[in-house]
Amino acid sequence: MITDLNGATLAFDRTDNHLVILDQTLLPKEVKLLHLSVPDEIFEAISVLRVRGAPAIGVAAAIAMAVCAKNIKMQDKQEYFTRLESIKEYLASSRPTAQNLFWALERMMATARQVEYLSISQINERLADEAELVLNEDIAVCRRIGGHGAMLLGDGACVLTHCNAGRLAAVKYGTALAPVYVAAEQGKKIHVYVDETRPLLQGARLTAYELADAGIKTTVICDNMAGSLMAAGKVDAVITGADRIAKNFDAANKIGTLQLAVMAKHFGVPFYIAAPKSTFDPDCASGNDIVIEMRSGSEIAGVWRESAAVPPDFDYNPAFDVTPAALISAIITEEGVHYLHE
Amino acid sequence: MITDLNGATLAFDRTDNHLVILDQTLLPKEVKLLHLSVPDEIFEAISVLRVRGAPAIGVAAAIAMAVCAKNIKMQDKQEYFTRLESIKEYLASSRPTAQNLFWALERMMATARQVEYLSISQINERLADEAELVLNEDIAVCRRIGGHGAMLLGDGACVLTHCNAGRLAAVKYGTALAPVYVAAEQGKKIHVYVDETRPLLQGARLTAYELADAGIKTTVICDNMAGSLMAAGKVDAVITGADRIAKNFDAANKIGTLQLAVMAKHFGVPFYIAAPKSTFDPDCASGNDIVIEMRSGSEIAGVWRESAAVPPDFDYNPAFDVTPAALISAIITEEGVHYLHE
Repeated sequence: MITDLNGATLAFDRTDNHLVILDQTLLPKEVKLLHLSVPDEIFEAISVLRVRGAPAIGVAAAIAMAVCAKNIKMQDKQEYFTRLESIKEYLASSRPTAQNLFWALERMMATARQVEYLSISQINERLADEAELVLNEDIAVCRRIGGHGAMLLGDGACVLTHCNAGRLAAVKYGTALAPVYVAAEQGKKIHVYVDETRPLLQGARLTAYELADAGIKTTVICDNMAGSLMAAGKVDAVITGADRIAKNFDAANKIGTLQLAVMAKHFGVPFYIAAPKSTFDPDCASGNDIVIEMRSGSEIAGVWRESAAVPPDFDYNPAFDVTPAALISAIITEEGVHYLHE
Repeated sequence: MITDLNGATLAFDRTDNHLVILDQTLLPKEVKLLHLSVPDEIFEAISVLRVRGAPAIGVAAAIAMAVCAKNIKMQDKQEYFTRLESIKEYLASSRPTAQNLFWALERMMATARQVEYLSISQINERLADEAELVLNEDIAVCRRIGGHGAMLLGDGACVLTHCNAGRLAAVKYGTALAPVYVAAEQGKKIHVYVDETRPLLQGARLTAYELADAGIKTTVICDNMAGSLMAAGKVDAVITGADRIAKNFDAANKIGTLQLAVMAKHFGVPFYIAAPKSTFDPDCASGNDIVIEMRSGSEIAGVWRESAAVPPDFDYNPAFDVTPAALISAIITEEGVHYLHE
């Protein structure tokens, strides 16, 4: 049984057939590992954000498919595939906006179908191999994103980021923070301003935690202070992750990202999206086609020390917004820095 | 002794020589009146925001001067004036950005000097009359701001506001919300989206409270959702108050206002400042001359249910930002709607 993730966010315990995740809803107060093997548990973990961040969700979903496949009781191959397909559909419905979730589930399903002539136990071994591959690819991809992005950051650069697209959002390194980690490895001093990221405070809870843990200078700000920071000339670059990128490069990311992009444009600060190629949705022509997850308004007052507004009417709580490509300076992927405008 | 403010935020209890204020740090959970007469108490009430909002601070300061003057023990008129001057300087240092505070204190000091040939008790009576005048003027001014601003709001209009510039920020009616209240009186249906307004949640605690109390449809949003709302075409106008307006119409207001103005410009939504003429600082050429109050970073994590970031580094907590005139569509004062650009 895996009891230490060695700085990673999740792992595939192939011996015990478990998806092992760090429960991020408890961070930074408590570091607790969850060993999951039942579709309902995995669905719950994804939907309440115990595992979160587009790349991590993708890897978790791939491992989940391998774990759940091995637990299928059916001996008949057609029934096995029907069951696997239904698990895939079920897990796909746990978060409506996460492209990596759909991508990973489709990849695992395609892997199974490619070897459908094998025995069920052989198919299960093939799925487990593929899940390990997805996991190792994620680490390699994030490392490459970091290498490309680090070239954009000079010594002493101040970076503003939103939400958590660091190592806690992937397996290691992360996406938006990968350039920061690699730049730091190169000996550059980087100062990261972190939007607290309302309503669920992923910036304050997760990004500040992991950056401080890595010894990088970090300042948490309220989401409404970014404009003031940029106006004061304190931000050299904004880097965020993305949950889905359309064919025209419109990008969906955590609610509040659009505001940063609008302000970066206004104040002449470069705005970068750092995301793996798997975030691109070839079936999505533009941001207009991206369905935005609307979450319960109760999340808004939920983190306050005391319930504040009386009577509170919190009926607008989109989890994401869409930043149009016109506001994005460049997209950093594992393949390089793709400038959108000249 | 005054025990009911009848919907107002503060009062002058001339009989008992008290400044009576509603303790806004306890709202909306508790409605508690404070009876103040000592400079230290009044300084504390202003600095920790028990009384807050530019107009209310001005009126409170005027009443405070009348109350404190009456309590001066000196019989010698020169000593009386020296003491009055030192009380004025002390109260002026309770909030560094509030123009109405300085304006009201100067007005009271000038009132005393104009009648310095009178006896001390007569001067004190004159100061008390002036404080009552300041209070009644504030109510009348806010009502007129509301009348002018209401003409900008059609039936069914959706207004976005930030922080609290409603009746709780003035004596009655408020500034930014006065147009909403008057439009509602005229029978128009108005929907107000309220930025929660981090770090101290004045929007959620105060604005949502007073609007709901007045029967106006109110939705509290996180400060990072305004861009998404505007992109969706759900905002017809942004109206905020101001704490100080420079000669070139740059306006200082609660941190986060600048972001709204940048986004309103980007999305083609009119951005209005509603403020009394007393908010204009004739000695301030532009926003560059406005000193921004930096508050303790501990306020940022202070309202969370659990302290989130570990180790938290919250060393950037400006109370205000400056919105350049170029981003302001019009300033609504008691004299009318002053368009800044055509």
